[in-house]
Amino acid sequence: MNKNSKRGLDPGSLVYIGLERYQKPGILVYHYDQSGCVKEQLDLDFDWSNFSKKKEKVWITIDGIHDAALISSIGRHFQIDQLTLEDVMNTRSRPKLEINEHYYFACMKALDIKPDLPLVLEQFSILILENVVIGFQEQNGDSFHALRQKLETGSGKVRQSNSFYLAYLMLDTLVDDYLLATENLAKRIEVIESMLTKQIQQHQLKTLLKIRRELFDFKLATDPTREITSLLSKEKETGIRKYFIDLHDHMLFVADQIQFQREIVSNSLDLYHAMSSDKTNQVMRLLTIITTIFVPLTFIVGVYGMNFENLPELQWTNGYYYTWGVMVLITLLQLRWFRKNRWI
Amino acid sequence: MNKNSKRGLDPGSLVYIGLERYQKPGILVYHYDQSGCVKEQLDLDFDWSNFSKKKEKVWITIDGIHDAALISSIGRHFQIDQLTLEDVMNTRSRPKLEINEHYYFACMKALDIKPDLPLVLEQFSILILENVVIGFQEQNGDSFHALRQKLETGSGKVRQSNSFYLAYLMLDTLVDDYLLATENLAKRIEVIESMLTKQIQQHQLKTLLKIRRELFDFKLATDPTREITSLLSKEKETGIRKYFIDLHDHMLFVADQIQFQREIVSNSLDLYHAMSSDKTNQVMRLLTIITTIFVPLTFIVGVYGMNFENLPELQWTNGYYYTWGVMVLITLLQLRWFRKNRWI
Amino acid sequence: MNKNSKRGLDPGSLVYIGLERYQKPGILVYHYDQSGCVKEQLDLDFDWSNFSKKKEKVWITIDGIHDAALISSIGRHFQIDQLTLEDVMNTRSRPKLEINEHYYFACMKALDIKPDLPLVLEQFSILILENVVIGFQEQNGDSFHALRQKLETGSGKVRQSNSFYLAYLMLDTLVDDYLLATENLAKRIEVIESMLTKQIQQHQLKTLLKIRRELFDFKLATDPTREITSLLSKEKETGIRKYFIDLHDHMLFVADQIQFQREIVSNSLDLYHAMSSDKTNQVMRLLTIITTIFVPLTFIVGVYGMNFENLPELQWTNGYYYTWGVMVLITLLQLRWFRKNRWI
Amino acid sequence: MNKNSKRGLDPGSLVYIGLERYQKPGILVYHYDQSGCVKEQLDLDFDWSNFSKKKEKVWITIDGIHDAALISSIGRHFQIDQLTLEDVMNTRSRPKLEINEHYYFACMKALDIKPDLPLVLEQFSILILENVVIGFQEQNGDSFHALRQKLETGSGKVRQSNSFYLAYLMLDTLVDDYLLATENLAKRIEVIESMLTKQIQQHQLKTLLKIRRELFDFKLATDPTREITSLLSKEKETGIRKYFIDLHDHMLFVADQIQFQREIVSNSLDLYHAMSSDKTNQVMRLLTIITTIFVPLTFIVGVYGMNFENLPELQWTNGYYYTWGVMVLITLLQLRWFRKNRWI
Amino acid sequence: MNKNSKRGLDPGSLVYIGLERYQKPGILVYHYDQSGCVKEQLDLDFDWSNFSKKKEKVWITIDGIHDAALISSIGRHFQIDQLTLEDVMNTRSRPKLEINEHYYFACMKALDIKPDLPLVLEQFSILILENVVIGFQEQNGDSFHALRQKLETGSGKVRQSNSFYLAYLMLDTLVDDYLLATENLAKRIEVIESMLTKQIQQHQLKTLLKIRRELFDFKLATDPTREITSLLSKEKETGIRKYFIDLHDHMLFVADQIQFQREIVSNSLDLYHAMSSDKTNQVMRLLTIITTIFVPLTFIVGVYGMNFENLPELQWTNGYYYTWGVMVLITLLQLRWFRKNRWI
Repeated sequence: MNKNSKRGLDPGSLVYIGLERYQKPGILVYHYDQSGCVKEQLDLDFDWSNFSKKKEKVWITIDGIHDAALISSIGRHFQIDQLTLEDVMNTRSRPKLEINEHYYFACMKALDIKPDLPLVLEQFSILILENVVIGFQEQNGDSFHALRQKLETGSGKVRQSNSFYLAYLMLDTLVDDYLLATENLAKRIEVIESMLTKQIQQHQLKTLLKIRRELFDFKLATDPTREITSLLSKEKETGIRKYFIDLHDHMLFVADQIQFQREIVSNSLDLYHAMSSDKTNQVMRLLTIITTIFVPLTFIVGVYGMNFENLPELQWTNGYYYTWGVMVLITLLQLRWFRKNRWI
Repeated sequence: MNKNSKRGLDPGSLVYIGLERYQKPGILVYHYDQSGCVKEQLDLDFDWSNFSKKKEKVWITIDGIHDAALISSIGRHFQIDQLTLEDVMNTRSRPKLEINEHYYFACMKALDIKPDLPLVLEQFSILILENVVIGFQEQNGDSFHALRQKLETGSGKVRQSNSFYLAYLMLDTLVDDYLLATENLAKRIEVIESMLTKQIQQHQLKTLLKIRRELFDFKLATDPTREITSLLSKEKETGIRKYFIDLHDHMLFVADQIQFQREIVSNSLDLYHAMSSDKTNQVMRLLTIITTIFVPLTFIVGVYGMNFENLPELQWTNGYYYTWGVMVLITLLQLRWFRKNRWI
Repeated sequence: MNKNSKRGLDPGSLVYIGLERYQKPGILVYHYDQSGCVKEQLDLDFDWSNFSKKKEKVWITIDGIHDAALISSIGRHFQIDQLTLEDVMNTRSRPKLEINEHYYFACMKALDIKPDLPLVLEQFSILILENVVIGFQEQNGDSFHALRQKLETGSGKVRQSNSFYLAYLMLDTLVDDYLLATENLAKRIEVIESMLTKQIQQHQLKTLLKIRRELFDFKLATDPTREITSLLSKEKETGIRKYFIDLHDHMLFVADQIQFQREIVSNSLDLYHAMSSDKTNQVMRLLTIITTIFVPLTFIVGVYGMNFENLPELQWTNGYYYTWGVMVLITLLQLRWFRKNRWI
Repeated sequence: MNKNSKRGLDPGSLVYIGLERYQKPGILVYHYDQSGCVKEQLDLDFDWSNFSKKKEKVWITIDGIHDAALISSIGRHFQIDQLTLEDVMNTRSRPKLEINEHYYFACMKALDIKPDLPLVLEQFSILILENVVIGFQEQNGDSFHALRQKLETGSGKVRQSNSFYLAYLMLDTLVDDYLLATENLAKRIEVIESMLTKQIQQHQLKTLLKIRRELFDFKLATDPTREITSLLSKEKETGIRKYFIDLHDHMLFVADQIQFQREIVSNSLDLYHAMSSDKTNQVMRLLTIITTIFVPLTFIVGVYGMNFENLPELQWTNGYYYTWGVMVLITLLQLRWFRKNRWI
Repeated sequence: MNKNSKRGLDPGSLVYIGLERYQKPGILVYHYDQSGCVKEQLDLDFDWSNFSKKKEKVWITIDGIHDAALISSIGRHFQIDQLTLEDVMNTRSRPKLEINEHYYFACMKALDIKPDLPLVLEQFSILILENVVIGFQEQNGDSFHALRQKLETGSGKVRQSNSFYLAYLMLDTLVDDYLLATENLAKRIEVIESMLTKQIQQHQLKTLLKIRRELFDFKLATDPTREITSLLSKEKETGIRKYFIDLHDHMLFVADQIQFQREIVSNSLDLYHAMSSDKTNQVMRLLTIITTIFVPLTFIVGVYGMNFENLPELQWTNGYYYTWGVMVLITLLQLRWFRKNRWI
């Protein structure tokens, strides 16, 4: 549904905004603590008022944010503000961090990266309550595969740590995807660059402009994310500030990379334009050389094609050969001049 | 009347500044509270000293701000500063928020959006007093149709809430129009973009430059509006800070979108220029190919058009055929060279 | 006299810096209070130690700031710092506000606006003491005509108000001129723009570049002025803060307008360049069409102009007509190709 | 010696960095107070431990900063930090202000201005101690000629005032040179500009680019200087804050001027490019007109130069004249078309 | 190993990120105090739990950061945070300063400078503990040769001073390399610039774009380094603030230089483009001159090549000479016109 369809609705109305999605949302719950981890797949029509933790801590993942009933009932159970839920269902909402009384809410863009293909940005939201973390993603993806394995096998410190640590690991995964994306973009730019040095073609230009646009899109998605990590790196309540400082460093690195690649794209565009005008120059030069050589010669042979009754040279025995001599001489002088001026 | 006509007038002089308007201003009053809602249409010559609320809360809408007498008598009744009233009547005044002792005043730009047409900006002002909200709009429009219905039917929380909530709903409507406008602009840009990839034409360039200008105009109108929402989102007195924070998020999103579309327009302009120079290049190439092939041939046939008495080749039996042979050979060599250099 | 002529002089040396002025400075004094207003024209050699107020408040206007003796004696009488007086006499000094112990000093640029002509910036300085306001202007002008009338007729609140209110009215007049100037610039740009859409000519480019330069000059003059109004709008001592806030809003509007017009000029320059290269393209296309059609035909007629004794086609009865047939055919094919490629 | 030659040296090592200088440094001392002024020229091998003031205040000028022994002994006598002395000897050090316990240190760029020549930047350092001012300049120059005269003749307030006042006068002299330099640059730009309007030549472009570079260099030198004057204008300890505020105003004016001239240079470059492409356009147009007129005519005369035995027009009595008629007609039509399209 | 290979790893996982390195890391330890200095080369499999200082202070250098076991055991011995160690092993981590409870950690880029070659950036990290400094560098280099000599010979103050002083000397060496690098870049740009004034060639453009890219890369590496030196220059705990202030001044100078060289490169690119279009212009002019002269002449000789039976001029005795006369006249007139318009 389109953003403008919200015009006239009450604030906090739960309306999905984004590409139409038809798949049924999935609900995956991990109950865990130091002692172990229990995995549970809930039905879409699960009654959230019956929800109870089986271990001390819980991680809920919702794949698909287009079901207002689901979002609403989760929100009601965990006492989440309506405006926050509205943001969860809006795939276009801007990355931001909200610190409420009993929960943190962050939304940002997750990346779906495929080599040589444009970036696909998806909305990702996370609710951090005491001992409960809820992640919302637009589509069923396996971004957090490694994280799930860690929970299940108990490797790392995730089972022992608080909600913020789990949230940190999720954000870290997303930011690692950003780094990966900058590398993919770098590779695509490099391909164009090495093609440019050989021969320019219009599709290269179009690709460069497309990449420039993607970089700008990426920048718009990551700039407010950097504000999120900056805020988190200053928040003492999380208890794991040093991890968020590290995360913020990565975001700064991502920003540097995006800036750097924008510079390279702009470099390549300059090169394209210069080579294009160079090509025109070469074409012009050939045209001029051919014209400059043959037009005077054509004039000379024209002279002796005239039908004047009294045209003395025509009677000379060697007139024809003299004419050739003059023409060869003119051509040689011209070639020498062209060479001197480095035209040929 | 023109802004400069105010030169020499006292500050606070009530002079309408904007396009000439001839329609009679309309005055619409909603008296409402939790118990119900009464709608009243006032005459232009209504004596405002007789104005009394029929319910606890009142929403007044003035359509048309070019009648100094009307604005002045409203201002007198509600004890509004002259300088504020001056701003109400100035369609060019810059979006801003004024916090006075007993009222808030905000003016911003409302949009009149029609698909595929340039944006039309209109002045919109709002006065927020205790239990009274007065909205001023340049023309009779139905921007707040949905809001009126809510009041009349009692849906939503508007009847129960304070003046700020009503004002918030009005501002929210305007900001939703901004979002809609960015989408319309995006569509218009997309049309040009897809045309560009086929064939470039000068009117595309003109449209792009017109859109770039509209975007800049839009940016100038929304940048100070963002300051308004930022101030409101920090103001605790309103009692509904979280709604204004949400509104401010939308304004940030609008700003991102405008920035993004400016980038895309600039991308399209670059593409236009590149394709235009590419076209010149193609024309030049054709010219050069034709010239390079035929000018030497014309020279050759010119040679044997000379009238020298002693021109041995003319007597050769197959001279004519040899000449053709040489000409075909030269042409083939040239075509091969062109192919090798990817000119044809 | 030139700025550099001050090199080596003591600080506070009263030296006029600006275009040479030959007219005699004029001194106009208004003595006024609630009871009435007395106008007085003083001689250039008036002994300022004898100056006495005839009413409670005084407004002095000095037309011409190139007479060091005059400026010096005024300064001495009113105990103005030498450095301040130095700024009064420097037509190039940057707009600024100085708050001294017993006076405020502001200098800014006044505009001399004539339709369709470049902006002329003149230095304007104002000294605000208790009950005394002294204005210094470069030339005898009637910028404050309306203000004088108000004093004389007693309309408005100026006779009742303090020095700051009179100063505010003067600054307001100057700022209204800025608004007027932006409108004049807008009109001049519009003229060029509408000409551009018909046919481009080099003088349009030159005018655009001239306007761009004027806009930059204007921006340099108004940017520091905005700092003045910003400071005044925060100063509580003036007692009329709300008027200065209003004035500052106008300055922000001026800044927006200048920025907007810079964008439009840059748009127009882009259009100029695009249309210019389009024109070249058209010229090239005509050249290429003519060449492509006639050069092959010229070759063909050249072939049958050869004098070979054995050139069979020449003896054919209809050879001449066949040749024409071939030539017409070639031309038709070319025309079709040009049409298909939308060249003609 | 080159900056990199310091690699591996201890911090505070006194090494001269800059262009090689061979002249002997000069040492000039002014002992002064209200009662009078004594001038003294010291030898290079003067023993600074014997230095004693002959009056209350002292001004020392060192012309030439490449003699480490001299700088070192002065530093030792006046207890100056090694790092400060290192900066004195480094002609590339960035303008800055250091406030130490018993002295102020400022270094900035002095200008050597010659009309129509590029700016030459020289290092200038100043040490301000109680009653002692030491100035270091790269070369023997007479920048402070006027200042010396004031000291000797006792004019102005310099003899009565503290060290900061003397330092202020020196800095004021340097800043006046900056103003002079912006005027010289303005003149050089104006010369190019007026040439541009007549006819463009490549050397104009090169000069413009050279000036742009100088302006950037100048900007880099003055931007940190503005920080110095800003700091000094806030420093109460100097006792002469109002003079430093005035100095800072001048620096702001210099910055405005540099910015303005950068804009004008950029304007001129745009004009150059536009006129250059206009010139190409004219050349192309001439080429196209000539080609379009003569190529068809040449084709026509070629037709009647064919040697077909059966070519009826050749036998017509007035064939030759008819041909001329057709050719004149074609030419007239073409000329009319060119005129209609404003090509000629 | 690639950055993205860290996806899914626990924070603080020690994984080397960078170009593959095969050489064995080297460990060099200097034990020193005022009394002397002992140098020690440790094996890669040295057991760090046995490490003991032989003098009061220790400087450890690790050449090669790709051995997780080594980094890990050093980290364990000196109680360094895992996240810090992770940064040590990441050659792409952004320059930053971390102040922890018992140590300072800084990482930045070291330069490997070779004349006329692109800059090579290497990761350099430094840990500053009480009386222990540990430096990590990517490769075995001799950047700190001079520093080692100072320690061994006891020259300078390094043996007497604290860890921060040693660290300062190391950072100073790196920053001196930055200065050297800007000079090398300046030289490379100068070479291109002087070539450009003679004749432009495409490889010059490519080199300029390459340098522009290097400058941007350099800027990205040094901008965060400036933050490090800024922080250190404010840190009082180091006890040597004045040295770090000096260091920060150098970093500001480096930033100025980079900015200046970016301006010069951009200047050169402008010159390249202008000269390139100038060249096209010359080619066009020659083409036009040749065409304009010879095409009309060819037409004239074509006229008298026609075979009309009745073509009177052909019978004139001097017809041939008259024709030449006309042709010479036309040519002279054209040449004069070209000269007047300064084409030749």
